Parts: sequence; structure tokens; C-alpha cells
Amino acid sequence: MGGTLVLREDIGRVARLTLNRPEALNALSDAMLAALGAELDRLAASPEIRAVVIRGAGRAFCAGHDLREMEAARAAADGGRAAYLALFETCSGVMRRIRMLPQPVIAEVHGIAAAAGCQLVATCDMAVAAETARFGVNGVNIGLFCSTPMVALSRNLGRKKAFELLVTGDFLDAAQAVEQGLANRAVPDDRLGEEAMALAGRVAAKLAVAVRIGKRAFHEQIEMTTDEAYALTGRAIAENMLEPETAEGVRAFLEKRAPDWQA
Amino acid sequence: MGGTLVLREDIGRVARLTLNRPEALNALSDAMLAALGAELDRLAASPEIRAVVIRGAGRAFCAGHDLREMEAARAAADGGRAAYLALFETCSGVMRRIRMLPQPVIAEVHGIAAAAGCQLVATCDMAVAAETARFGVNGVNIGLFCSTPMVALSRNLGRKKAFELLVTGDFLDAAQAVEQGLANRAVPDDRLGEEAMALAGRVAAKLAVAVRIGKRAFHEQIEMTTDEAYALTGRAIAENMLEPETAEGVRAFLEKRAPDWQA
Amino acid sequence: MGGTLVLREDIGRVARLTLNRPEALNALSDAMLAALGAELDRLAASPEIRAVVIRGAGRAFCAGHDLREMEAARAAADGGRAAYLALFETCSGVMRRIRMLPQPVIAEVHGIAAAAGCQLVATCDMAVAAETARFGVNGVNIGLFCSTPMVALSRNLGRKKAFELLVTGDFLDAAQAVEQGLANRAVPDDRLGEEAMALAGRVAAKLAVAVRIGKRAFHEQIEMTTDEAYALTGRAIAENMLEPETAEGVRAFLEKRAPDWQA
Repeated sequence: MGGTLVLREDIGRVARLTLNRPEALNALSDAMLAALGAELDRLAASPEIRAVVIRGAGRAFCAGHDLREMEAARAAADGGRAAYLALFETCSGVMRRIRMLPQPVIAEVHGIAAAAGCQLVATCDMAVAAETARFGVNGVNIGLFCSTPMVALSRNLGRKKAFELLVTGDFLDAAQAVEQGLANRAVPDDRLGEEAMALAGRVAAKLAVAVRIGKRAFHEQIEMTTDEAYALTGRAIAENMLEPETAEGVRAFLEKRAPDWQA
Repeated sequence: MGGTLVLREDIGRVARLTLNRPEALNALSDAMLAALGAELDRLAASPEIRAVVIRGAGRAFCAGHDLREMEAARAAADGGRAAYLALFETCSGVMRRIRMLPQPVIAEVHGIAAAAGCQLVATCDMAVAAETARFGVNGVNIGLFCSTPMVALSRNLGRKKAFELLVTGDFLDAAQAVEQGLANRAVPDDRLGEEAMALAGRVAAKLAVAVRIGKRAFHEQIEMTTDEAYALTGRAIAENMLEPETAEGVRAFLEKRAPDWQA
Repeated sequence: MGGTLVLREDIGRVARLTLNRPEALNALSDAMLAALGAELDRLAASPEIRAVVIRGAGRAFCAGHDLREMEAARAAADGGRAAYLALFETCSGVMRRIRMLPQPVIAEVHGIAAAAGCQLVATCDMAVAAETARFGVNGVNIGLFCSTPMVALSRNLGRKKAFELLVTGDFLDAAQAVEQGLANRAVPDDRLGEEAMALAGRVAAKLAVAVRIGKRAFHEQIEMTTDEAYALTGRAIAENMLEPETAEGVRAFLEKRAPDWQA
């Protein structure tokens, strides 16, 4: 069941999800995607949770889709077409839920983040990488171009570097991932969990309604023209200003004291 | 009046605007935005001016909106809603005028560029930063997510770094701002004014009609598909080629002499 | 004829095109654009070719449009307007053919890549630069803003740096071009040809149908919203999965052996 494929641990206001299929390098099988999607739905309805960390059990963050399962789908009368279309639609839907989740989502990456695993990193709002982590969209090496991972990847990296990774199958190390915009920071391996939780904890301490308004607007406005984006965000920030807890935040700032936030 | 809130000094063909409310760290109050907008309108009608520098008087470039004024607006019957919507519409309009101004606009940044002050930097066509300058979108710390500054910020920086700054309230130093694409260069503090003027002077020495055509096309094409962008810029560069001063520029180049530009 | 203006040499599965008008720094005259366009059309119909390298003969990669030819067009009754509109439409069409070509295209850059020559680099899917190569959009210096090169440039670089290059006419060196996203790597001058061919060779060794599907989807999806991009790429990767050679690639991976690809 999903319950064991994706583990959830709440640490204060942070939910930590662990992809838990280490023997398959946490491959995103149908069941794994369903479990992850279900957890994201639960988190969307969990206002007490203010930030989410996604990590992987075992040797790797995530090695991508489950090729064995995909190969088995060829036995169908249509050669697998319907199954593949459904798989990628499901996967894109999970990525969409991460973007739409009220809480910021942080990828905690160790080992390998490959193909759809790299897409997961690119989709998360932020990423903390172990110094030895490696990132690649290497499907091209087996003749399956990482077309869906490319959507998230090419919205994080410059075009020439994104194209190079897709067409060569080469991996970035953690320092390169930071330099290229795929990760926010690289940290010593033995401090990875701590650093990801520290970042999540800092986000979780902010006023939840402000973060929720801001994250939603972030992902909406970035796909608009500048004028449309300002129309949207002008309304968003005005609404934000009218929140009672924001009023307390602004007053506290003007009175040079800490805000007394209940939320 | 606007005359003292935004000072204008013309140095050759460069207009230098100084946000002049140092006691409030040049906060973008209604009056400040009106004064800045009015100066931009005047500059749009000043063909003798070829480049614009915006800087701040006192300790900081600009600390963002005027929270005291915004707080006072809560006394209205609607709790401030109309005032906030109007404020952000006005502010976005000022940012739009910077993008639409015929002349390139350079931010000369020292001290702090925070929230809408950081938005102003991100909106300017270029930015020169003092080595000790710091850049942040830190509204989240008082419960007011920098949703409008985010529009300009996320069109300068990579997504993950932009999101991190918005949600943590952390500041970039000048070197990081250059690395991330928010500033063009960082210079020693005691050379800031000189370096900003030097860059503006170099731009001012170019053929004005070419720069005007190019700047307008830059901001228009960047929001289009590539095919649309080429259709637009193909017409723009053909018009540019037909300008008499450009004919002189091309001839001078072919004859290996300096152009004799009257304009 | 085009045959001498653009030389084509097939080295294994890589086609190497050489802009061959060294006495004019390989300027993109009407005839050069026609020759390059014709070669691209032939390559689009050459499935045995898996990757393309574009380089320049003589001292430079490409110095941009042919100003002497453009100047001569002023003699027409309309002062050259029709000729200029046609020239830039033709040029944009060549750039479009590079993006639409089934095979990845690598710019091999030495000497100078200026104006439309820089646009050509920015348009190629990847670029390998000699350490001494220099990149600029310097038309502004003669009063002709690089409005069409800007389309490709501003889709490779951050906005502030792109604007700076356009308005100052300054050049990037090879290391800066890599840092800014305009080139994938800088290599010693005496290894340039070898390194460009090595990269092309690695791409050429991948499964052609996967690369073809992926490159097309890359350029299509990057101009879409994220949701549209996922809809497109979900279909693309499902089609890719159904290719017989991809089936062999996946099976080979699962059986821990090299794929036996005929294609």
C-alpha cells in the first residue's frame, strides 16, 4: 500500500516524505506515483504543515520511472500505448500537485536523481543536495529521450545546458547543479538531512497565509506576460495585506517588536 | 512636492534621478511613486536625454513600500482594500514606465534594495551595485509576501533561487546579485557613482534612435514566442536600417571612419 | 553557388558545415543564407546524419550580416525597405530551420561571433567555443541595434546581461560565454575541431528516433505553459516508448547488456 511506499513523518510543522522502495532506487512505479499523489493530497488539506521535504530511502533519491513495469505493459493489445499515456499523465499530475501544493516543497537529494527523479528535483520549489549527489536526464542512453523531465528541467536551467544534458545523458554533480540553478545548495553528505530540515524549518516559521498566497502566485505569474503577472500579483498582495495576521506583522515591525502570530 | 522627493540632475545626456527621502530609506510612498512616475513621463518626452540612472539618497537605495502609510490606510471603511489595490497598480505602472521608457535605465544600488526596492532594481534595464549593497525580497518576514516584486525578480533570476529569496527573506550580497543575474556588476563603494555614470555615458554615446528601437523591441519580444519575436524584430531592424543616421553609421564603418552623427 | 559558400563534409554520422567566405569573415549575405538554408533542407532529409556541426573558415566564425550588400540595397526605389524586410525574414527562416532540424546542431566557434554570427551561435542547440573566441551583438556601434540577434540571445542569457551586451556592444570572451549560458564549453584553440566533433559524435551515437522526438519537443514545449508542455511531452515520450528500437534499448538495459540497435 501507499502507506509503506511513501513514508510520512511530521517533525513540528514540517512533513518529511520518504520515497521508500530502496531496492528499486525509489523508481516511480504506478503505485509509487499513486502513493506520492495521495500524500500530496493529504498535505494540501493539512494546514498545520507549513513545509514539505521529499527524500529517498536507501542509496538514491530516485532513479526515474519503473522500466520493468513499463516493459511489462507492452503485453497489452495496444503494445502499451494506453498505459504509457496514462503513466505520463499521472506523473505530470503529481508534478502539478507539487507546484500547486500550498506548502513549499524541498527536495533532499542524495545519490542519484535520474530521469523522472531529476524531474522531481526540478519540480520542487527548492532543492538541497548532498555534495556527492548527481543529477541527470539520461533516458537517451536507452533510446528514451527524457521528454517529460525536460519540461521541469528546462524551466530551471539555461537552454544550452539543458539540451546538452538531455542529448548526452551526462550527469551534473551537486556543485554544478547549484551553479546551473537546479539546486539551491550543496552540503556535506553527513549534514544533508539536517540542512534540508533547517531550510524547511525556516520556511515553516513564516506566516502560513503569506507563504500560501505567495507560492500560488509564484507559479501562476511566471507563465504570464509581465502586465498579466502584475495584475495577478497586485490582487494577491492586496489580499495578503488584508489578512489579520499580516496586520499584526506590519504593526509589530513598525513598533520594533516580534509579531504575536497565532497562526 | 515631487520636485524634492525625486531629484533630477542632467549630466550631459544622462539624467540622474535621486530618490530623496533618506529618513525613510527612500520608501515608495504614494507621493514618491507619483514623483517618480512624473519624472519618467518627463524623460519620455526628453529626446536630449539618452540614458537614466536611478539612485537613492542617504544610507540605502530603497527599502520598499511605505509601511506606515499602508498601515494608516486600514482606517478606511473597506479596511484599506481600495487603497492597496490602487497602490500596487500605481507601483506596477511605474515599473511599466521604466520598461517602456525610450532610454535605458540603470539602477545605481548602495546599502539596501529591499522588497519593492529590489523590484525597482530588477525592473531597471541594468544595475550597478556597490560591493556592500544587499538585495532582498523580505516581506515574508512581516507576513507580507513580496508578490509584486516577484514579477520582476523571477524574470531576472533562476526559479529556485528566486523562490528561496522570496520564502526565506534572505539577502544577496552584491557579488551574488551579479552571479544570479540581478546586477550587471559590483564595484567598490567609493566608485559606485562614477561607474554607474560611466556605463550610462557609454550608452548615451550610442545612436539614440537605434537604442530606442532596440529597447522597445527587447521588452516586447521577450514575452513572445520565437516566431512572433522574429516577426516583430525583423520589422524593427529593417526600420532601424532605414534611419538616415544609421545609413551614416554603416557607411562610416565601411569607409573605416568614425560616424558623423548629428543626433 | 551555394556549394562553395557552405562546404559540407560528412564524417561518419556527423555533417560538418563550413561557412566558406573567409575574406568577408563569413558574412551572412543573401547567397550565404540561401546556401546555408539549402544545406539545412538537405540535412533534414538525410536520416543517416545524426548531428551537425557549423563552423567558419578563416579567422572568424561569422561576423554577421553583409553590410556592403545591405548598403547597396539602398539604391532601390524604396530605399531598401523591401530588401531589408526580405533579408531578415530569410535570416529568421534559417534560424528556424536550425531549431526545427531533426538533428542537434553544434556551433564550433573561433575568432569572432558578432551580430547575426552571435545569433547563429545562440540559435544552435549547443556551442563549443575556442578559448580565444569572442561573442558580441555590437550593431549598436554603427547605429543598427541587433534586434533580430536579440531574439536568440535573450533566450540563452539572463535579461540584464543580454541587455548590456546589446546596448554597449561589448564582447564576451569564451569563459564568460559559458558562464552566461551562450556556450556549453570553452576548449583550447588547438583542440576546438576535435572537441566539437567529439560532442557531435557522442550525440550521433544515441538512438536517432529518440533524439529527433526529443529535439522537436524541446523547442516546442519551451514556449508553452507548463501544463501544455506536459500534455505535449507526455504524448512524445509515449510515442518514443513505442518505437521498436527503444523497446530494444529498454530490454538491453534490464538485461544489463548493450542495445543491439540497427538504426
